Amino acid sequence: MSSPSAQFSLTLRVELDRRPGMLGALATAIGEAGGSIGTIETIELGDVKAVREITVDAVDREHGEAIVAAVEGIDGAELIETTDRTFELHRGGKLFTGLKTGIRTRDDLSMAYTPGVARVCQAIEADRERVFDFTIKHNTVAVVSDGTAVLGLGDIGPEAALPVMEGKAVLFKEFGDVDAFPICLDTNDPDEIVQAVRLMAPVFGGINLEDISSPRCFEIESRLIEELDIPVFHDDQHGTAIVVLAALLNACRLTGRNIEDLRVAMVGAGAAGVAVAKILINEGVGSIVSCDRTGAIHSAREDYLDGSMNTPKTWLAENTNLNQDNGSPVDVLEDADVFIGLSGPGIIDADDLQRMHPDPFVFAMANPNPEVSPEAAERYAGVMATGRSDYPNQINNVLAFPGVFRGALDVRASQITEEMKVAAAHGIASVVREDELSEDYIIPTVFNREVSHAVAEAVSREAMQSGVGRGPRALTRIAY
Amino acid sequence: MSSPSAQFSLTLRVELDRRPGMLGALATAIGEAGGSIGTIETIELGDVKAVREITVDAVDREHGEAIVAAVEGIDGAELIETTDRTFELHRGGKLFTGLKTGIRTRDDLSMAYTPGVARVCQAIEADRERVFDFTIKHNTVAVVSDGTAVLGLGDIGPEAALPVMEGKAVLFKEFGDVDAFPICLDTNDPDEIVQAVRLMAPVFGGINLEDISSPRCFEIESRLIEELDIPVFHDDQHGTAIVVLAALLNACRLTGRNIEDLRVAMVGAGAAGVAVAKILINEGVGSIVSCDRTGAIHSAREDYLDGSMNTPKTWLAENTNLNQDNGSPVDVLEDADVFIGLSGPGIIDADDLQRMHPDPFVFAMANPNPEVSPEAAERYAGVMATGRSDYPNQINNVLAFPGVFRGALDVRASQITEEMKVAAAHGIASVVREDELSEDYIIPTVFNREVSHAVAEAVSREAMQSGVGRGPRALTRIAY
Repeated sequence: MSSPSAQFSLTLRVELDRRPGMLGALATAIGEAGGSIGTIETIELGDVKAVREITVDAVDREHGEAIVAAVEGIDGAELIETTDRTFELHRGGKLFTGLKTGIRTRDDLSMAYTPGVARVCQAIEADRERVFDFTIKHNTVAVVSDGTAVLGLGDIGPEAALPVMEGKAVLFKEFGDVDAFPICLDTNDPDEIVQAVRLMAPVFGGINLEDISSPRCFEIESRLIEELDIPVFHDDQHGTAIVVLAALLNACRLTGRNIEDLRVAMVGAGAAGVAVAKILINEGVGSIVSCDRTGAIHSAREDYLDGSMNTPKTWLAENTNLNQDNGSPVDVLEDADVFIGLSGPGIIDADDLQRMHPDPFVFAMANPNPEVSPEAAERYAGVMATGRSDYPNQINNVLAFPGVFRGALDVRASQITEEMKVAAAHGIASVVREDELSEDYIIPTVFNREVSHAVAEAVSREAMQSGVGRGPRALTRIAY
Repeated sequence: MSSPSAQFSLTLRVELDRRPGMLGALATAIGEAGGSIGTIETIELGDVKAVREITVDAVDREHGEAIVAAVEGIDGAELIETTDRTFELHRGGKLFTGLKTGIRTRDDLSMAYTPGVARVCQAIEADRERVFDFTIKHNTVAVVSDGTAVLGLGDIGPEAALPVMEGKAVLFKEFGDVDAFPICLDTNDPDEIVQAVRLMAPVFGGINLEDISSPRCFEIESRLIEELDIPVFHDDQHGTAIVVLAALLNACRLTGRNIEDLRVAMVGAGAAGVAVAKILINEGVGSIVSCDRTGAIHSAREDYLDGSMNTPKTWLAENTNLNQDNGSPVDVLEDADVFIGLSGPGIIDADDLQRMHPDPFVFAMANPNPEVSPEAAERYAGVMATGRSDYPNQINNVLAFPGVFRGALDVRASQITEEMKVAAAHGIASVVREDELSEDYIIPTVFNREVSHAVAEAVSREAMQSGVGRGPRALTRIAY
């Protein structure tokens, strides 16, 4: 059984008889039911009754119900209300429209709106680039999804995807000071998605594509990159790839290995797999073999030859495993230095890791259950990373996307190049200092506020060097 | 020459010799140049120099330059920097993404984002209506424009229109506590506009169409109303109409006239003209004659008969002036009780108002220069209203749209019916108390915070009565 966690947290409002031992009885009942008590707030202290509000973490929904039942069974306690904290936090949405300046007087109105705003409009009409100076395009990213591949939930539609896209916007703001707005589109048609994003692009300084299913995500991203002059970035692909590379860079730094010499075995040939392979190749990794259900992918495979292979696998067939080695996921571990899992739980046994070179890097990122159990893998792995926050070395996109867009917006980059992604990975890796680096700390935690600054700086520097960054406009005098 | 105003306000940073009389010399120079001094801030007080920042309102751009030149000519003063306050206020845009709750801990992250958010997604997937409970759809309106009819500036494109749409979002938030986001679309094609709005509709609780040129605005609005289950409202039409009706209701209340008996002469047959005529007919006004450049509009006119008349005029031809009276704008004033101007400056002479019934209501809303000069009209008009803030009785949409959407969102109205618009007008009118009502005060000012509450209440009540409002969901327990 897993441990209680905030995602299944309840708030219990309880009225207790005002006599010694009642609070103890309540806490004991919750504890015996396995609930983990957080805060206790006193709402009312009367002569005969006390009302208290207690937050309790449960393991899952059923466990929450068991805790509620335990509290209801206490003599002298009445459960007034139970609320689910996660749902409460979502009530009415997680975002609001913030105003940089309120409208208190006629003067405010005449500057922020009519008639004063007309001069600002005319300045932009005369020089369209000024939209970056005087509007939210300056700092605003659209988080665009069609709701077809949301978390592990699959195709749940645009409405049900909205809480995730709002959450993404929260992370953009919190970790990168990037303003973001969720756009959930009521269509699965790539043409319609491309068209809708193209039409709304004047408002945005960047487009973050999110949770769009493969292979449509490739076509949508590449067409938008082609058509728009602002960065377009499919985070499920590139965010993951950037953080994987950062982890690999620091694993090499820790162990003194050269990234060029590494042999990588990868399981999972979806959108993220392609992006990971691409960024590793760009960084100079020599050998990558990736597998799907049927085994190692290469360009001599039946499904490649008969054209039935999908887009991401075709890319992998043409760009990795150039020796055309065959084999199962377990077979390709043979003599590999790195295992990268982007698939599902329990794909390999820990014992299979013995086939790898000694002290391999094992990045098992299936969530919530990794490709190989971290506990079991411990005795074989030199460095272990997962997608989970409760193990060391969490590969989490939050380390990448806020800083990537922060850096791109800072220099008005027209796109996010492969080189900028590599730079972002180096930025993340650089945050772990020499004296901190250890097998349990190759990746900074998501709450390390240095990360997005380091990423933004690396990304914007690379953008300016390559000419993709248009640079911040000088704060020239306007009109007077 | 007009008076100095905030829309042409500058901030002058000046270094002055630290000796008696210098500040006086500066203030005198600005005053002699005709500038109106606002605040004076002291930035630095040294032994020999003082740096001060002075805000100065000018009449227009040239006047601002003259003031700058005057300051530069003062002996012992050095102008360090001049900034245009309106442009400064727009730098980087006027909105930001507000977070209802920050992400400080892993628990925050696990509730607002993964893994906790998944349960919220699943609840919405199971019952799509819950998107109103747990996402920003609850309270968020899109301000949609294609930039084709922006203020008096015409077709300036989506980028140049963005400052206005941001300003509109500011007003929504400030006056109605409605969250709003600007969407400027890079197309003029009605099909593409309808499609883009339809696709992004899952995120929004309402659509405010803005500054879309006629006659496309009619088709776009009616198709979106047809296709979407959230309110769609073209503010240029209905906002104006609601406030005109509110003004007319209170003018009647003041003078004891019956709205049914009024004869209305209207000049201007664009989008707002149709909406005004429609709302007046719905309120029972018996006689309306509207004019365009060529005269009174009716269904016996050549251009109606040969089908060359545009959409709004065709509507007017079929629904007003049923007697098919001919005549110029001045002719139709004959025996009218009300003049409504939605056209351009100086269409009629004040003396023409003598043709009207005694003490007519004159609503001359062309901006910035009304159809007839308020000063000249004063001796003839019983009640005068304009679109300007520097005369009494300003007909300003800000009185309507924040409360209209506030009321619609409060009860999850699926549309904004004609009856809800009429209710909104009564809501505005009701804010002026009996003892306040006078010929100079038939309309509350935009800063009267009672207005949007009164409008919202009237609109939501009407929506619930007619069944258009779905009502607020009960705050039911979720999951536990």
